[in-house]
Amino acid sequence: LASRLPQVGTTIFTVMSTLAAEHGAVNLGQGFPDFGCDPALLDAVDGAMRAGHNQYPPMTGVPALRQAMADKVQALYGRRYHPDTEITVTAGATQAILTAILAVVHPGDEVIVLEPCYDSYVPNIELAGGRVVRVPLVPGSFRPDFDAIAAAITPRTRALIVNTPHNPSGMCWTDAEMRRLDELLAPTDIVLISDEVYEHMVFDGLPHHSAARYPGLAARAFIVSSFGKTYHVTGWKVGTVLAPAPLTAEFRKVHQFNVFTVNTPMQHALAAYMADPAPYRDLPAFYQRKRDLFRQGLAKTRFRLLPGEGTYFQCVDISALAVPERELPEADFCRWLTAEIGVAAIPLSAFYGDGFDQKVVRFCFAKKDETLVAALERLQRL
Amino acid sequence: LASRLPQVGTTIFTVMSTLAAEHGAVNLGQGFPDFGCDPALLDAVDGAMRAGHNQYPPMTGVPALRQAMADKVQALYGRRYHPDTEITVTAGATQAILTAILAVVHPGDEVIVLEPCYDSYVPNIELAGGRVVRVPLVPGSFRPDFDAIAAAITPRTRALIVNTPHNPSGMCWTDAEMRRLDELLAPTDIVLISDEVYEHMVFDGLPHHSAARYPGLAARAFIVSSFGKTYHVTGWKVGTVLAPAPLTAEFRKVHQFNVFTVNTPMQHALAAYMADPAPYRDLPAFYQRKRDLFRQGLAKTRFRLLPGEGTYFQCVDISALAVPERELPEADFCRWLTAEIGVAAIPLSAFYGDGFDQKVVRFCFAKKDETLVAALERLQRL
Ligand SMILES: CSCCC(=O)C(=O)O
Ligand SMILES: CSCCC(=O)C(=O)O
Repeated sequence: LASRLPQVGTTIFTVMSTLAAEHGAVNLGQGFPDFGCDPALLDAVDGAMRAGHNQYPPMTGVPALRQAMADKVQALYGRRYHPDTEITVTAGATQAILTAILAVVHPGDEVIVLEPCYDSYVPNIELAGGRVVRVPLVPGSFRPDFDAIAAAITPRTRALIVNTPHNPSGMCWTDAEMRRLDELLAPTDIVLISDEVYEHMVFDGLPHHSAARYPGLAARAFIVSSFGKTYHVTGWKVGTVLAPAPLTAEFRKVHQFNVFTVNTPMQHALAAYMADPAPYRDLPAFYQRKRDLFRQGLAKTRFRLLPGEGTYFQCVDISALAVPERELPEADFCRWLTAEIGVAAIPLSAFYGDGFDQKVVRFCFAKKDETLVAALERLQRL
Repeated sequence: LASRLPQVGTTIFTVMSTLAAEHGAVNLGQGFPDFGCDPALLDAVDGAMRAGHNQYPPMTGVPALRQAMADKVQALYGRRYHPDTEITVTAGATQAILTAILAVVHPGDEVIVLEPCYDSYVPNIELAGGRVVRVPLVPGSFRPDFDAIAAAITPRTRALIVNTPHNPSGMCWTDAEMRRLDELLAPTDIVLISDEVYEHMVFDGLPHHSAARYPGLAARAFIVSSFGKTYHVTGWKVGTVLAPAPLTAEFRKVHQFNVFTVNTPMQHALAAYMADPAPYRDLPAFYQRKRDLFRQGLAKTRFRLLPGEGTYFQCVDISALAVPERELPEADFCRWLTAEIGVAAIPLSAFYGDGFDQKVVRFCFAKKDETLVAALERLQRL
């Protein structure tokens, strides 16, 4: 049996979570909270189930959830998406991104990704028969390199995938960068896939510069959001895609023959829960406190802290550590850290197609304070 | 924007459900129950959520659910699937089928479908870059035509999709037919995708002849099941795929970059609920009674009843009706029936690539008795 994805193994997040469990390590690898969600959200699911919302919802999503999303996006980012023709509920962000790619990328089309990038993008493009064009973010700062992006664009470029706040680096695109992107794409018909699942985790009082704020970008963009990230329920697998009607129409053609629909009671519960903006409005402060706690602890180690503008990830440079294992490839260092020190992390090389190794690893700080403290104690021994 | 699926409109199930809602028609179109599930299953979801099962489950599925599935399949069909390497939990059957196709079909490969067939198969093959080879089931009986299947096989045939019990016709493959398929495929390396989502809806005391019972078929098969169909929760979107380890490995490469994982609390609830075999053991009798009630009512109309061996669908021939609209194409007849008579049905032509029209429409009888009675009253007026 010839593989459709010969380069692909098991995703790094599963590999490291499994290893963490085997060694009883503190798992700061895979990005998910180790605390619960608001019990009111669970009450809402229970209520939806008891009210009989257990059969297929509309293929596009429960109307109340699409409406709530439209209202929220308008309030936050100033653009009005029509709930019937421009918003689709998905089984999480990963499904949204694959579906968008399958909907617009024809065999032989080129798709630009900015490395490091989330590990599903490249196999997603390959499954659509597209050609992956890798452009590095600036090593160290992880900021977009517009000359490099411009140089990568050809007449065959069908789509560009951007991600802000950026996993794994935490870098957030600035207003100036979004404008520069808008200018760069203006003369083209390139589709933008904007992965904004960490939209509510931008720190230090800065706003999230969603593609929805920029008419030129929004007119060509699939914008991907995740309720799992925002409401601490990564296992519910509910997200949304915003896109202008013609893009949404193509998206839905594929979506209906991929998952067809998305969990009904969870959709009803999320729709009701979204009436209160407090949970996402308070999220930056909630995670900023955790970021600060974690960074202060890391400052007492020999890791060199990288910037942490957004997301619930913190990257560190390992090259000044006082252990010989810092000479290992990042991936082996992470295995060693998990097995011997008892803290799981993700190597940044897993986000590069060529395994580019810059001695940087990623920790997830979406954890109880006591979990972070336990991890820091172990890391401070290094 | 050039479409990846230029032939595709909105799925017929969504079209007819929308039309039914607009006209206040009794909706016997899209296949879903209008009654609730066992409240014990809702209690189990609630319990799982309160116990904190709201974050990412393992990519392959919650271990207890894979174990419960392995045990059930062994008890029913006599084959032992290893829960770790041969069973994967999916976001419903549709996602399972697309993922299996993306995992094994290379661009240019041929995939055989037996028409009429579920409307996702053909676009799924097209998205993988495969070539669709359509072989008709015998018109009238809807039984497999082995000479036609044999004639369609070429060295480029990568996969064959079969569906038993068969949607839309209700036909169930016999033991002799499964053996004949096994012989036909034995000299080939064709992958079998066996859609068995109606496995627990086989009537008149007959067994379900799962591909899992036939070692030669099971060794080359993805077998697709649906908890939504079995437990009356079509909106939960949980299914499974059984396949030998090498096929499962390829499946998971794609699965992890499609939905990645499947709703955590629903998986825990289903695992606990499966400990009791009564719900699926009692399902044939439950639906057989509804089938009989519905068929007895239809016998008093001028529809000609087709066989109803399995599934929760009943097909009828409309050509002897006493209304001029019977001359319409099936699709227009169904629209008329919905708007004017107040009963929604699905035209069989929607399950054929060339819209083959044999004056047959499909009703879903997974409805409360009172719903069926209300529909029958209207249909008896024809
Ligand atoms: C989908 S599993 C990984 C979660 C995540 O977003 C990450 O860890 O980067
Ligand atoms: C996935 S929507 C349609 C449900 C179904 O299986 C059918 O009606 O055939």
